[in-house]
Amino acid sequence: MERDPRFDVALRLEVEDLYARYIACLDQRRYDEWPDFFTEECVYKLQPRENFERGLPLCTLWFESRGMLKDRVYGVTQTLFHQPYYQRHLLSGLTIAAIEDGSIRTEANYLVVRTKKNEPSEVFNCGRYLDRLARVDGRLLFREKVAVFDSELIPNSIIYPI
Amino acid sequence: MERDPRFDVALRLEVEDLYARYIACLDQRRYDEWPDFFTEECVYKLQPRENFERGLPLCTLWFESRGMLKDRVYGVTQTLFHQPYYQRHLLSGLTIAAIEDGSIRTEANYLVVRTKKNEPSEVFNCGRYLDRLARVDGRLLFREKVAVFDSELIPNSIIYPI
Amino acid sequence: MERDPRFDVALRLEVEDLYARYIACLDQRRYDEWPDFFTEECVYKLQPRENFERGLPLCTLWFESRGMLKDRVYGVTQTLFHQPYYQRHLLSGLTIAAIEDGSIRTEANYLVVRTKKNEPSEVFNCGRYLDRLARVDGRLLFREKVAVFDSELIPNSIIYPI
Repeated sequence: MERDPRFDVALRLEVEDLYARYIACLDQRRYDEWPDFFTEECVYKLQPRENFERGLPLCTLWFESRGMLKDRVYGVTQTLFHQPYYQRHLLSGLTIAAIEDGSIRTEANYLVVRTKKNEPSEVFNCGRYLDRLARVDGRLLFREKVAVFDSELIPNSIIYPI
Repeated sequence: MERDPRFDVALRLEVEDLYARYIACLDQRRYDEWPDFFTEECVYKLQPRENFERGLPLCTLWFESRGMLKDRVYGVTQTLFHQPYYQRHLLSGLTIAAIEDGSIRTEANYLVVRTKKNEPSEVFNCGRYLDRLARVDGRLLFREKVAVFDSELIPNSIIYPI
Repeated sequence: MERDPRFDVALRLEVEDLYARYIACLDQRRYDEWPDFFTEECVYKLQPRENFERGLPLCTLWFESRGMLKDRVYGVTQTLFHQPYYQRHLLSGLTIAAIEDGSIRTEANYLVVRTKKNEPSEVFNCGRYLDRLARVDGRLLFREKVAVFDSELIPNSIIYPI
């Protein structure tokens, strides 16, 4: 019988480490490294909770390969006109929900606090990650990351990855 | 000699899983399942920090059985007139403080971010859980959950469980 | 070969316990106990992210011994004129980055929510701890704690330790 993945210590430390490195990468604005957290074929979605719960497909962002993520990074760092801001991620309630078809389903609540130049820090976006991890050459990567966000009214647009 | 419960890995994973399921239940608005996290006889209190620290008994909410929790759920979902909002819980600093009289004393900081329709997400309530867990038929349940909250001025009233 | 400290369960539980006790101490305003989390010779810095990233030395607070921390506590509790407020810390992404020269390098994102009397709770300060731990008489202490904060515009001044 397979072990309940929620109580597999070694796996949990590895998954926690993946998320810790993921949020450190984003919060330190090392955007060039962001696509490397994903498998070559992958799904990255940022979707409003209302659409998700109603089964509506509309997403704020929807990418389907590491190449598309690299395009996004190019846009964010080179072409998209925007006022830069800092992000700070906090995660909670990380769960290793199941191991299915060779991928690991994980979930976690997230909060992103945003700080714009000369403004106080503020709650920017919060929601839940619904992810699938795959092991490639021994390392855990995101095969799928769906960030379902509560925040219907976004203060300006979301530029950087969540 | 009994092992220091703070460093018992198996217990910690189990307690973290309990809290992860608890906040997922609330944040996904599965309120009908909320009473099932508690023992039949139980205590649920939501108390302002000022009262708690002065030893004053007044609480914002105070329930003493799973039946009272079910009544509350009925109120929240059927009769209480309110503008719905999303909650998003983040926990931190989870501590297994002691094992006493067959129950496990745990503590954790919590933050609840609230999102109302067409409004930005905002800090809603934060404080500390002071809980007691009991094992019933092999599963951990809350025998006592006291949420002592810092926030003296609540933006409107607290409708949903914390 | 030394074990990867990120995956050493016993060490991780110990480090998590240190941080849990640290934030509980601050959030419960047991400031007299705050210096006891540090080694006799130590570094405590609170530094704006902009200065940190540009390699500029200017810090909001900079202490270099437990004695200086005690002086700060005396100031905070006895002489500094200020309107009291509650702090609530949330940490995320704790990483045991390396073991170097007998000290343990750790990092974590932090968020501090502030509550002033009769005001709603608000995001106060967020950033990243860049710490070094040392084991003294069997207990882990902070040899160095550098809180690099995103928030350039602080609502009033920072009185209490972060």
